[in-house]
Amino acid sequence: MKAEIIAIGTELLLGHIVNSNAAYLSRQLADLGIDVYYRTTVGDNEARLLKTIQTSLNRADMVFTIGGLGPTEDDITASTIAKAISKRLTYSPSISKVIDKHFKKRGIKTPRINYRQANIPTGSIALKNTVGTAPGLIIKSGKKIIIALPGPPRELIPMFEQSVAPYLKKRFSLKYTIVSRVIKTTGLPESSVCPKVRGFLKMEGKTTVGIYAHLGQVDIKITSKAKTKTLAKKAIKPVEKRIRKKLGDIVFGTDDETLEGIIATSLLKQKKTLSIAESCSGGLIASRITNVPRSSKFFIMGITAYSNQAKTSLLNVSPKLIAKHGAVSKPVALAMAKGIREISGSAVALGITGIAGPTGGTKKKPIGTVFIALSIPKKTFCKKFQFAGSRKDIKSLTSQATLNMLRHK
Amino acid sequence: MKAEIIAIGTELLLGHIVNSNAAYLSRQLADLGIDVYYRTTVGDNEARLLKTIQTSLNRADMVFTIGGLGPTEDDITASTIAKAISKRLTYSPSISKVIDKHFKKRGIKTPRINYRQANIPTGSIALKNTVGTAPGLIIKSGKKIIIALPGPPRELIPMFEQSVAPYLKKRFSLKYTIVSRVIKTTGLPESSVCPKVRGFLKMEGKTTVGIYAHLGQVDIKITSKAKTKTLAKKAIKPVEKRIRKKLGDIVFGTDDETLEGIIATSLLKQKKTLSIAESCSGGLIASRITNVPRSSKFFIMGITAYSNQAKTSLLNVSPKLIAKHGAVSKPVALAMAKGIREISGSAVALGITGIAGPTGGTKKKPIGTVFIALSIPKKTFCKKFQFAGSRKDIKSLTSQATLNMLRHK
Repeated sequence: MKAEIIAIGTELLLGHIVNSNAAYLSRQLADLGIDVYYRTTVGDNEARLLKTIQTSLNRADMVFTIGGLGPTEDDITASTIAKAISKRLTYSPSISKVIDKHFKKRGIKTPRINYRQANIPTGSIALKNTVGTAPGLIIKSGKKIIIALPGPPRELIPMFEQSVAPYLKKRFSLKYTIVSRVIKTTGLPESSVCPKVRGFLKMEGKTTVGIYAHLGQVDIKITSKAKTKTLAKKAIKPVEKRIRKKLGDIVFGTDDETLEGIIATSLLKQKKTLSIAESCSGGLIASRITNVPRSSKFFIMGITAYSNQAKTSLLNVSPKLIAKHGAVSKPVALAMAKGIREISGSAVALGITGIAGPTGGTKKKPIGTVFIALSIPKKTFCKKFQFAGSRKDIKSLTSQATLNMLRHK
Repeated sequence: MKAEIIAIGTELLLGHIVNSNAAYLSRQLADLGIDVYYRTTVGDNEARLLKTIQTSLNRADMVFTIGGLGPTEDDITASTIAKAISKRLTYSPSISKVIDKHFKKRGIKTPRINYRQANIPTGSIALKNTVGTAPGLIIKSGKKIIIALPGPPRELIPMFEQSVAPYLKKRFSLKYTIVSRVIKTTGLPESSVCPKVRGFLKMEGKTTVGIYAHLGQVDIKITSKAKTKTLAKKAIKPVEKRIRKKLGDIVFGTDDETLEGIIATSLLKQKKTLSIAESCSGGLIASRITNVPRSSKFFIMGITAYSNQAKTSLLNVSPKLIAKHGAVSKPVALAMAKGIREISGSAVALGITGIAGPTGGTKKKPIGTVFIALSIPKKTFCKKFQFAGSRKDIKSLTSQATLNMLRHK
């Protein structure tokens, strides 16, 4: 089954709205095993919409339209679909009754303009809109179908779930479902991760593999199409095992897991407490840790020692050490980690100092130079990193590297 | 000038990523007075991409592609554009030098795979990527042009602003320009802000007004189309003045200004130092403050006192006070603010305590209860807030309300 999605609305083309609906619909169709090859966005213009519907109908088995079902003159979806498949519009008394009911519930007389929404292509099946007045439409044309959905997500989503998905499953006795598994890595750039999984990226057929890079994180996604969720998961399992073997310990989690969540789970399990002394990351690491529910069970304190004063008075870093090596140095990172471990009594402690930019870099210590120290009962050690990007990027990359050191401790 | 946008990526068609880039690009082109009639999304499939490029080139004067410029086998944009306009790929030594520089900065040898990105359609103009390795491309084909941009927004946006917009303005001597002015507010929900500006939202013609709600922030956007920037700005000015009058002191800034940036500027100007004692916000407020360049000039320290131990040992909050009122209470927030002001010697100090959830709420203090205390030489006071949403939402709303209190101090 091949499908296309047409999103309709000049406000989309002007960029005033992000097309989150199209992404939602794409995900739902993928889950039903329906392939989407093209998605098109057009404005509220009859000639261009007509052409787009015709092109899509030629290429695909089913065409979904989103938007343009409202009551105003701008809403041309129903009439243009009718034109595209050479049908007329018929007035549906039953739809106008539903519309009347909608307004009566709100104590309002139906505005005359809304009865336009009762004009639908002859032979269409109307889909119930539990939120608004625009009915959804299923329109058959030969062996192909067009499904017209309203634009607002709060109308489209329940309509898809309650009416469209059950219809599609029944009508096409859909046999396939798609399951995805995301393997998340950090510590290496995309260009180093990619060669490790290159063979998998070329896989064709029912199970495929993709690679997606984010700031400080590279995800490998395995997608499998099968008759049941269980079978899809079964197909994914050996591929995941082989990919994990190739990737080794850069893998930190899967699917919805986060680096901070993984660390929280591990610390809670080991019953170890954590404290963090930050300079260049400015509280971001503490904030990521405290994004995790139950972090209050193990996180004792975070100190953002942005000034030298804070480093000496709160963390007991000796002013001489700062004077000798500079605030951004290995000895100071180590002293920060040791300092906060002592004052907090935490089992695990971190000290981070660096240059986030956009100023403050030197030839020897350019912007992006970061020292991260980890102190645990058995050892205290420090790693030097060289990051690049904006101030915010460097903060983010610093937090990611710190959490990754914590994971490897 | 007619343009089309082609977004490339199977992950887009599967709905794994929302196409926010396309909306951004649409807005920018609208601002330049360039009409976008179609936007198409295709997967990483050469045959379908080829056809899409050809169709778009037939209909439009310029075609923008987004994505598929990475170093991997999946990235087929440059080669497919070359095929569509019957050109070859040429290896560009100057691009490979830029790529080498990118990796050298990070202390890494250029992975061999990245040199693929130096193969560009013969005769292309390469656009500088200040963030990643993928060069953008301007490719002429007869009277038409194709502009290929990288997929990640943090690469695409600076490239558009620094290279593409100036190029388009010069090359097509664009006659109309659109200028927007965003008035940013915080402290009231959209439902309270909207009635204040309802009359403006109905404006038609060359100057229009829109309202956009975010978490803890409502923006009013005035957009004006005119022959010059100066004329557009002139049209915006009186509208902005009238809107500001209606909104009063909920307005904290305009355009690219941030709440933390406004506060930083004000503290630097007043030569006042700042320290923050956080509990439920977990370091987020310190992190937002330290996102601002030059924050090291006024931000002395942040303490995330997540445990009672940290509150007493670091901030000198009396254990009796915590026992009597609870850690989430007005007296504790006040003591935290006073405590950090004393130990830091800062002119301005904040104390924040609350319940971020998802557990820990009681009938008297439900999830989302937050106390924010502000201490300055003349006074120390505390406000109680009741927020709603996820743990992250509550943290974010807390940081916004805190910075807003700081703004009003």
